[in-house]
Amino acid sequence: MVFKYEYLQNFIKEVFLSIGCPEADAGLASKVLISADLRGVDSHGIARLSGYVRLYDNGRLNPKPEIKIIHETPSTAVVDGDKGLGLVVAPKAMQIALDKADKVGSGWISVQNSNHFGIAGYHAMLALQKDMIGWAMTNAAPLVTPTFSKEKLLGTNPIAVAVPARENPPFVADFASTAVAYGKMEILQRKAQPAPIGWVQDKDGNPTDDSNAVKNGGALLPLGGDREHGSHKGYGLGAIVDIFSGVLSGANFGPWVPPFATAGFMSAGEQVGKGTGHFLGAMRIDGFRPAEDFKTDMDKWINRFRSAPAIEGKQVLIPGDPERALEIERKAAGINLLDPVVKDMQGLAERFGIQFEA
Amino acid sequence: MVFKYEYLQNFIKEVFLSIGCPEADAGLASKVLISADLRGVDSHGIARLSGYVRLYDNGRLNPKPEIKIIHETPSTAVVDGDKGLGLVVAPKAMQIALDKADKVGSGWISVQNSNHFGIAGYHAMLALQKDMIGWAMTNAAPLVTPTFSKEKLLGTNPIAVAVPARENPPFVADFASTAVAYGKMEILQRKAQPAPIGWVQDKDGNPTDDSNAVKNGGALLPLGGDREHGSHKGYGLGAIVDIFSGVLSGANFGPWVPPFATAGFMSAGEQVGKGTGHFLGAMRIDGFRPAEDFKTDMDKWINRFRSAPAIEGKQVLIPGDPERALEIERKAAGINLLDPVVKDMQGLAERFGIQFEA
Repeated sequence: MVFKYEYLQNFIKEVFLSIGCPEADAGLASKVLISADLRGVDSHGIARLSGYVRLYDNGRLNPKPEIKIIHETPSTAVVDGDKGLGLVVAPKAMQIALDKADKVGSGWISVQNSNHFGIAGYHAMLALQKDMIGWAMTNAAPLVTPTFSKEKLLGTNPIAVAVPARENPPFVADFASTAVAYGKMEILQRKAQPAPIGWVQDKDGNPTDDSNAVKNGGALLPLGGDREHGSHKGYGLGAIVDIFSGVLSGANFGPWVPPFATAGFMSAGEQVGKGTGHFLGAMRIDGFRPAEDFKTDMDKWINRFRSAPAIEGKQVLIPGDPERALEIERKAAGINLLDPVVKDMQGLAERFGIQFEA
Repeated sequence: MVFKYEYLQNFIKEVFLSIGCPEADAGLASKVLISADLRGVDSHGIARLSGYVRLYDNGRLNPKPEIKIIHETPSTAVVDGDKGLGLVVAPKAMQIALDKADKVGSGWISVQNSNHFGIAGYHAMLALQKDMIGWAMTNAAPLVTPTFSKEKLLGTNPIAVAVPARENPPFVADFASTAVAYGKMEILQRKAQPAPIGWVQDKDGNPTDDSNAVKNGGALLPLGGDREHGSHKGYGLGAIVDIFSGVLSGANFGPWVPPFATAGFMSAGEQVGKGTGHFLGAMRIDGFRPAEDFKTDMDKWINRFRSAPAIEGKQVLIPGDPERALEIERKAAGINLLDPVVKDMQGLAERFGIQFEA
């Protein structure tokens, strides 16, 4: 079913208001969540709305958090998210990073006591309007094995970096530190199709094309796939994200990161810190070079890469190109939701007395 | 032939003194260069010594650089390496990062007008003794294709991150943003062996097992290998390193990064900035949490990962483990150099009147 994004965004806001979020927070959270659907990261958008409500039902989400700095220097801080929506905690932490960058050139915020923050790219892109480079990372519940491990110890731990250009749209890299996002496995599961070798391993650590492997004791593989193809680098990258987001903030880390509230994964289990961790950063471009010089060179970079000779039938893309194209398309044509997502929305509409026409 | 590392380090120092480097710089450069041989990154160690001399012969290396800050804020700066040895420029820039972190919590230095800086890990690890987290990245001459490109536009662009622990040795991730280092291709070339699919492409952008592909118009592939296995993420990572090191500093970037002086690659060609670029960073741990709390949690992280159930016959390693083991081994047993490297050393010994017994 196809919906206008404004309609969905408003629906999300109504749900967050219904669980007790203040007006401004519900508005912000709806904007962050719908940006995932607009940019084509469907698994991180409205499909997760009922999960946030389950987090609330299980006492793991505080709709009225007091988000505060618990330690800081001029360029660094740890922020306590007070069990608030990551969708609200992360933009507020990013604002602190931007303020610090304004004053001393850069700002780096490690966040504890949060939960799922939507897509990393949204938060990194908050820096663009201020001629800054933005960084966003988060840890997540374990789905990924370090190289040679049979056990899942890392989340898909994404990294996003947003860099402004002058005449071109910005450079926005936003990617998980795994070979593939778990959302792609779920698509294969629905279609009962096998997975390419290099995406997952089975419970004994063998390569497999079983798209249900992760459910059956297997794991997603780090970017690189196997040791021969550099999986230790993907593992290193995921580990860096985990340490910056989790260990540096006093959140949970590694296998202790609490799961998002999907069916069967309600409880947080043993904890070594507080909630989920994020890491957000901002660097003022004119802390390095005059912003116009830098942006002119970024245009040169982007134009040179975009015009490189491509493999037959393909085109060299700039990070952020596909997501921006989808956003334009979906803002115009609407967002197509799968039946289970619509059904979840119907349940939420009924529970909270929100009008919903599907 | 096997040599004691102290002997090689002294030989390196003598060579750098011979081309006019001051005593302290020659000593520092020899320490950085030999650390690559000790840590098992043989391609970045003494094997490159004659290349640095060729850079000098071609007027691309200033043995007495005036390394200086050309723009700064309390937490950021651009450093001009004045065509000095990257082996000297990078540790000095890292010292500026550490000083800034001391004062305002973090320090981030983008470097222009430098050249090859050895292994990234050395520079990142300079932060450890001060209870800081260290970052080091550099761009490099183009050997790598963006996803779908036939043309080489990025270097192997490595990232190193060093994080202190309490009772465990530090976490030190140090990896190129490619599926494999070019050094591994050279080993296969010498043995006339094919490369695994996923390491390189041919001149038309097709997957190939030809270990000579890069010489024949082909390219190294970004981490991930192909689009299906996430090569756009490796491309994004290499691009981030290039932008932070090259565009942010005013150095060359992308395909314009000048080649290291290996046979046939002497001249720098068209330039869009100054020399090669690096990016160095330091974050004070106690800018976030008390350092002892953090290091205790890092021990917990490391112990948990190291003890994870492993695939039959394997062990889960912590980033930095293999390099540290090699360093201990090679400090005791010596460093085995290939014949061409020894021959290069004989040439340098003869030219500069340095005693050398091979």
